[in-house]
Amino acid sequence: MEKLDLLYVGKAKKVFKTEDENLCIFEYKDDATAFNGEKKGSFDGKGIINNQIANIIFKLLEQDGIKTHFIKELSKRETLVKKVDIIPLEVIVRNISAGSFCKRYGIKEGIIFDTPTLEFSYKEDSLGDPLINDYHAVALKIATREQIEEITELAFKINESLIKIFDNIGIRLVDFKIEVGFDKDKNIILSDEISPDTCRLWDKETNKKLDKDQFRLELGEFASVYNEVYGRFLEKYPNI
Amino acid sequence: MEKLDLLYVGKAKKVFKTEDENLCIFEYKDDATAFNGEKKGSFDGKGIINNQIANIIFKLLEQDGIKTHFIKELSKRETLVKKVDIIPLEVIVRNISAGSFCKRYGIKEGIIFDTPTLEFSYKEDSLGDPLINDYHAVALKIATREQIEEITELAFKINESLIKIFDNIGIRLVDFKIEVGFDKDKNIILSDEISPDTCRLWDKETNKKLDKDQFRLELGEFASVYNEVYGRFLEKYPNI
Repeated sequence: MEKLDLLYVGKAKKVFKTEDENLCIFEYKDDATAFNGEKKGSFDGKGIINNQIANIIFKLLEQDGIKTHFIKELSKRETLVKKVDIIPLEVIVRNISAGSFCKRYGIKEGIIFDTPTLEFSYKEDSLGDPLINDYHAVALKIATREQIEEITELAFKINESLIKIFDNIGIRLVDFKIEVGFDKDKNIILSDEISPDTCRLWDKETNKKLDKDQFRLELGEFASVYNEVYGRFLEKYPNI
Repeated sequence: MEKLDLLYVGKAKKVFKTEDENLCIFEYKDDATAFNGEKKGSFDGKGIINNQIANIIFKLLEQDGIKTHFIKELSKRETLVKKVDIIPLEVIVRNISAGSFCKRYGIKEGIIFDTPTLEFSYKEDSLGDPLINDYHAVALKIATREQIEEITELAFKINESLIKIFDNIGIRLVDFKIEVGFDKDKNIILSDEISPDTCRLWDKETNKKLDKDQFRLELGEFASVYNEVYGRFLEKYPNI
C-alpha cells in the first residue's frame, strides 16, 4: 500500500491517503509539543519508538477484544490504519492525580483515586482544548447521549486493559488520553496513538516518570525513558 | 431572632449566627462583583431587591415541593434561613447558550438546547472556581456518587419550576447557578440565593437582558432591570 495525498499534519504524525478510501497511513514524526503547542522539541527516533509502542499496544488491546484502527505496520515509522471519522473529543482517563488536573484543583500529585475518573476535552486548538462535560457535548451536538455512554464504557475498558499491559512491564498507568471515532461501518473504535506521548507512566518501583513529562518538565531523560519503555515492551512481548 | 456573630462575608451578603445554632440570618448588601471578583460595583437598594426576589422564589419553589433553606423574611434586607453545610460545588443549569459557555466553546449566544445542561464548578476562589465533572468531584471526595445524583435531580427539578415561575412574569430563563448543602438532618437542600445576580433572564418579547449581565457588560440599565424584575414579581404574586 502506497502513501498518496497528505491528509493531515498533526503535532507528532502525518496522515496520508491510500488507494483504498477506507485506509490511511500514519507516519510518525520525531516532534514533540506540550502546553497546547507552546513548547516544542524532538529527539531522533522518537517517531520510530512511538509507532512501534503504539502498534504493540493496539495488538494487545485487540487481543482483549477492543476494536482499534490498527491494521499493519508498514515500516519503522509507518502504519496502515483504518480511516476513522474522529469525534472531536479528547478522552482522558486518570487513575492517579497528576499534571493539569493537580494545577486545576489545587491538589498534590500522586493521589490514587478509589475509582478511575473520565473527562472530555473539546478538541479545538483555537480554544485551547477546553474541558467539556457530557451534557455540553450532547447540547453542542458533538455526540449523542448514547455515543457518550459507548465512549465512556470503551475508555474504562481500555483503562483496565492498559493497566494490566503496563503492569506486566513494571509500569504504573497514571493517566492517558485517547481519541475515538467512527469506522466505515459507523462503529466507534479506538484511533490515534497510545504511547509515552499520550500516557503518564511511572516506574512501579521508583515512581520515575517514563513519559512526555520528561519533556514538559525538562527532567533531562526524554529520549532515554522512551527507549526504556520500548525496551521493556520488546523484552516482555518479543513475538507480538 | 437577633443577629449575633458575623459568620461569613460573601460578595453580595453577610451571614450571621443566631441564638439557634441551626439558624442563620442573611443580610443582603448592595455590592456586585463579576469575573471572579475582578469587576466591582453596586447600586442603592440592590440588596433589598435581591433579598425579596430570592424570598418570593424560594416560597414558590417550596410550593413545588423543593426543600430550601428559607424560613422567614425579617426585614427588607434580612432573612432567617436554615444553617446549611454547603457542598463546595456551584451547580449551573443552562437552557440557552450565553456568557462564559459561549466563550469557552466558541459558539454564539442564544442557542436553545434540546435538553438543559448541567455543570459543576469547584467553589474555590483561589483557583477561579474551575469547571469540575462528576468523576472528579467523587475522586476528590467533594461529594459521593449518590449525592451527585441527588444534586443533579434537584437541579433539573428546580430548573423546571423556575422556567414556569419566570415564564409567568414574561421572562425566559437562560441559565442559573445554585448552591446546595446539608441541613441539620443531613438532607440536601437549596441554599444561597436565586436572583438576577445568579440567573440570566431575558425578556420573552424583546430578549432584553434583565440580570447581572447589565453590570458585567456595562449595558447601562443595571438598577432599572432589577427593579423591573422585582416589579413583575410583585404584580404577579402580590400575596405570597
